Amino acid sequence: MTVTLYDLAGADPARRFSPYCWRIRMALAHKGLDVDARPWRFTEKDAIAFSGQGLVPVIVDGGRVVADSWEIARYLEAAYPDRPSLFAGAVQPIRFIASWTDRVVQPQIGRMIIADVAAILDDKDRAYFRDSREKRFGAILEAVQADRDQRLAPFRQSLEPIRVVLSGSPWLGGEAPSFADYAVFGAFQWARCSSPFRLLAEDDPIFAWHRRVRRLFDGLADQAPAFD
Amino acid sequence: MTVTLYDLAGADPARRFSPYCWRIRMALAHKGLDVDARPWRFTEKDAIAFSGQGLVPVIVDGGRVVADSWEIARYLEAAYPDRPSLFAGAVQPIRFIASWTDRVVQPQIGRMIIADVAAILDDKDRAYFRDSREKRFGAILEAVQADRDQRLAPFRQSLEPIRVVLSGSPWLGGEAPSFADYAVFGAFQWARCSSPFRLLAEDDPIFAWHRRVRRLFDGLADQAPAFD
Repeated sequence: MTVTLYDLAGADPARRFSPYCWRIRMALAHKGLDVDARPWRFTEKDAIAFSGQGLVPVIVDGGRVVADSWEIARYLEAAYPDRPSLFAGAVQPIRFIASWTDRVVQPQIGRMIIADVAAILDDKDRAYFRDSREKRFGAILEAVQADRDQRLAPFRQSLEPIRVVLSGSPWLGGEAPSFADYAVFGAFQWARCSSPFRLLAEDDPIFAWHRRVRRLFDGLADQAPAFD
Repeated sequence: MTVTLYDLAGADPARRFSPYCWRIRMALAHKGLDVDARPWRFTEKDAIAFSGQGLVPVIVDGGRVVADSWEIARYLEAAYPDRPSLFAGAVQPIRFIASWTDRVVQPQIGRMIIADVAAILDDKDRAYFRDSREKRFGAILEAVQADRDQRLAPFRQSLEPIRVVLSGSPWLGGEAPSFADYAVFGAFQWARCSSPFRLLAEDDPIFAWHRRVRRLFDGLADQAPAFD
């Protein structure tokens, strides 16, 4: 059985850069499921209209359609209980970590790479992306990311809870990777697939963890088109 | 078997206000253990010198001495495996939540109540507390908390990951309270035992959760001397 994933892509259809889609790419691999990850662009709303909304990730598994990365992860856990657990009994604490990633990690990364993201997009997405994001930020995208060197120190400081966990175990979930790892990893994978800007110092324990996650599943994330 | 807890107290020995000691009061109750919670003041370093350091909480359980709230929680889980679990399989994700509380929630609360904390202290602690904290903040304590009305909105905003979790379950740990709840609760209990300043709006789902935690264990935290 192959699961179809609608997966945000750039001008190069192999360049997949959505943090939420990466959460699901990793979750599907964790469950050992075959995937048909179809490139999808922001403006291809019609292609996922069957899901009842306009954002990816969307999966189709047999007759079942599921949207929203959290809902998809919960669906996979329920539908494939005999495969390695994504949550290992910690659903709500992991939801906290995913939600913190949404609200603390990703907005900071976004401000540092947003013009770089615009540059990798397919032609048909560029005007939509620039207009919607410049409206959101109230500034042109190049101006939004212009002060990113100054944003780096407070960004790295805000990641301290991750370092505390990694001081006690190799994965955010403990002795094995879990959806906690994939949620945080998606944010960093988004950045490295979209931008040459380096978010982590090489002596940061988060850097070493990030390398470990990249190497999972025969290097699934490591081999993706990226800037490093 | 009674566990001895050295527990930070104010001028009124019944006023216990340390966020980290509250984590352990709740954890001991969760494990159903009898507690002798002895009042301790900041300047009574000699009374806990046997622990090899100078901070509370410290517990003595039979011959075993354990300091540091995280180490104590881990110790209790290992020493009393047949009693209700504090972690329910989610040790590292809960460590993330505790660490986030340390680094995000408590520093913000501290800046809003620090002069109020000074006012509840025993005479012998006041000079020590004021000197050490004014040095840390670089300002007199009354000045530090003077802008707290302005700090409230960003503080409440920073709690959003808690609300996301509570939208799906009554406790941060899921269907039953866990050390995730006690870690975050300790911060709010510290505030309500030290200050009349109201941190949460009554229509905030965190407010309702906070009430639920207060009522646990026959109202252990609810009955503590406090400002509401």
